[in-house]
Amino acid sequence: MSNHHVSNKALNIEPFHVVSLITRAMELEKQGKKIVNLVVGEPEFKTPKPIIDSAIKSLEQNKIRYSPSLGKVELRESISKWYQDREKINISYNKIAVTSGSSAALLLTMAVLLNPGNEVIISDPSYPCNRHFVTAMEGIANCVPVDSKTNYQLNLEKVKDNWTEKTKAVLVSSPSNPTGGILDYEELEKIYSFVCSQGGYLIVDEIYRGISYDKEPVSAVALGENVFVINSFSKFFCMTGWRLGWLVAPEKFVEKIEHLAQNLYISNSDIAQDAALSAFSPDVVSQLDSNLIHYKEQKDYLMNELLRIGFKIPVEPKGAFYIYADASNFTDDAYKFCWKVLEDIGVAIAPGLDFGDYLSNIHVRFSFPKTINIMSEGIKRIDNYLAKT
Amino acid sequence: MSNHHVSNKALNIEPFHVVSLITRAMELEKQGKKIVNLVVGEPEFKTPKPIIDSAIKSLEQNKIRYSPSLGKVELRESISKWYQDREKINISYNKIAVTSGSSAALLLTMAVLLNPGNEVIISDPSYPCNRHFVTAMEGIANCVPVDSKTNYQLNLEKVKDNWTEKTKAVLVSSPSNPTGGILDYEELEKIYSFVCSQGGYLIVDEIYRGISYDKEPVSAVALGENVFVINSFSKFFCMTGWRLGWLVAPEKFVEKIEHLAQNLYISNSDIAQDAALSAFSPDVVSQLDSNLIHYKEQKDYLMNELLRIGFKIPVEPKGAFYIYADASNFTDDAYKFCWKVLEDIGVAIAPGLDFGDYLSNIHVRFSFPKTINIMSEGIKRIDNYLAKT
Repeated sequence: MSNHHVSNKALNIEPFHVVSLITRAMELEKQGKKIVNLVVGEPEFKTPKPIIDSAIKSLEQNKIRYSPSLGKVELRESISKWYQDREKINISYNKIAVTSGSSAALLLTMAVLLNPGNEVIISDPSYPCNRHFVTAMEGIANCVPVDSKTNYQLNLEKVKDNWTEKTKAVLVSSPSNPTGGILDYEELEKIYSFVCSQGGYLIVDEIYRGISYDKEPVSAVALGENVFVINSFSKFFCMTGWRLGWLVAPEKFVEKIEHLAQNLYISNSDIAQDAALSAFSPDVVSQLDSNLIHYKEQKDYLMNELLRIGFKIPVEPKGAFYIYADASNFTDDAYKFCWKVLEDIGVAIAPGLDFGDYLSNIHVRFSFPKTINIMSEGIKRIDNYLAKT
Repeated sequence: MSNHHVSNKALNIEPFHVVSLITRAMELEKQGKKIVNLVVGEPEFKTPKPIIDSAIKSLEQNKIRYSPSLGKVELRESISKWYQDREKINISYNKIAVTSGSSAALLLTMAVLLNPGNEVIISDPSYPCNRHFVTAMEGIANCVPVDSKTNYQLNLEKVKDNWTEKTKAVLVSSPSNPTGGILDYEELEKIYSFVCSQGGYLIVDEIYRGISYDKEPVSAVALGENVFVINSFSKFFCMTGWRLGWLVAPEKFVEKIEHLAQNLYISNSDIAQDAALSAFSPDVVSQLDSNLIHYKEQKDYLMNELLRIGFKIPVEPKGAFYIYADASNFTDDAYKFCWKVLEDIGVAIAPGLDFGDYLSNIHVRFSFPKTINIMSEGIKRIDNYLAKT
């Protein structure tokens, strides 16, 4: 097509390659091929039964209606209580917006902050959609290379070096997708102070919070007033397909976030909200905490196996459920490598390209919330394939 | 707060007053007040049981996962078949995107079309969020006054008169919220031809399709390739709180819409999609069609009563479930009137201001998908109130 009919922001938005790979993997499965899926970022664990039961109860009552745009007050209060109980942090529910996945939390944050041309500092590599939320709001994502030296995270120095008069915010993710890197609370405080001194805002994506292999640092909501914290029911709570998340925002932005949410979303899924009310009960939380034992086993297994067959892993993941592996022993075109591996041997892994430009040609991301059996089949196929090529 | 921290697009987005009124009405109800809700635009009918049952089945299987960003293929195929069966129009499922409510369909449409400064012609009055989707994407909503002379709809002449070199699209809603006006297919064809001749696009919001009191014109999907048609499971299918809708888009835009959807939404509610697969079965559709008898009775009742107590209704609604009433016998500040009526006598109605500027100070919108009992209580309170003031 002649592209002049498509908006520039749409032209600037790249495909989310992981999703394209998943879609192709599904097609191959329909054709009868047995695919090893190490690409999708979702827990193998089912949604805990009490959450399912609450959803069924809500359906049986059959009063599935529009609800307040910032979320049902009960659920906002439950999230506030969660911060109190789990993190010992006091956050008024007034600052909490329930959103249609963390996707909506990110869109609302960028919409309320960015004028055209405003910059947001983001690490490269990072979650692909982050930079595209900025683009969609006509902002500019200033993607700053990070590597194993800083656990694939920004630090004060990098933020200072890349801050310009157009910068409105810094976005960090901890634990990070795709690297599993965690940002020290101390470093986060330094970044926050600097950002505040410049009249800017810090955005912290905590959607993998709860999935950490060492003690987790304090949540960024404790930093102060000028921080936006994004979270989700998708990962720790095993609720990907429900599309529910939340945003803790500075109080002074809440009214405008509400207006945006009223207009752009009307409301969240009523069923998902009713279900999520059961997500914080002690039995559910203890079940979810026990998932960590499995994630850790899976991570240790996959790390050892990847190292054995020749991948390099400069930093062991401290959280989330991904390994960002250096594939330079096998390829300098990781994108092509991922598609070939999918088509030739039916193993789905994510190309570095999804997460940025910096050294993305030699990196691939493995997702490990999978049974050892599945991963072992994937490793076997890749090992054989590498031996032949 | 000092507003310079909030983006201009957020500052330019007005509250969705209907939602603010509903939120306030809920507060008053919690305080024990009995509220007559004639404000919310949602059917009183429950979601049909086969749809509920499918959702419960999906939950019992507990495989609620991410799904393709444009929607599950089965559901896209079902929507395609719906156009074939109901409208005798052949639309490939490839052109159909399932979206998180029609809200997401509108956002994706504006995102894929608009560069900053691009104009979209919209009628005034019209659905409030329409102009704000344009604003959020840094476009300019060119709101063109319409009145009873054109059934509160745009026509070729108005489109021609307001087309500028910056205009990218025309957005019409038929049946319209807040007026219930329907646009003739013939006039729509003329507008479409003109828009095409200018290299622009026509966007048609058909979310009230199926709720019409005369024979409905053909769906706008039949117009040709340069039309975006937005629809929803909320209204005809009685699924407001589920948040599911769809978009029929020109084929050449679909790839970019997919990239946008991947990044901005990831995927739709898995449960809602599984449920919606049952929405097109003949028994469900015949139940939904029979709802119309009630809507018509309710409309006739409310029209007569409003006229009796002194409101003016220049055009009888031909579709949707709203009456856009002229309240000039009682007020020239309809916004204040609505809030006073809510606070003083507990009747919730929507101010004209939500729907635009043109004569909005003397208009209010009544929603009539309510039992006669509820409406009768509302009319009684308003009549007494007007007698006293």
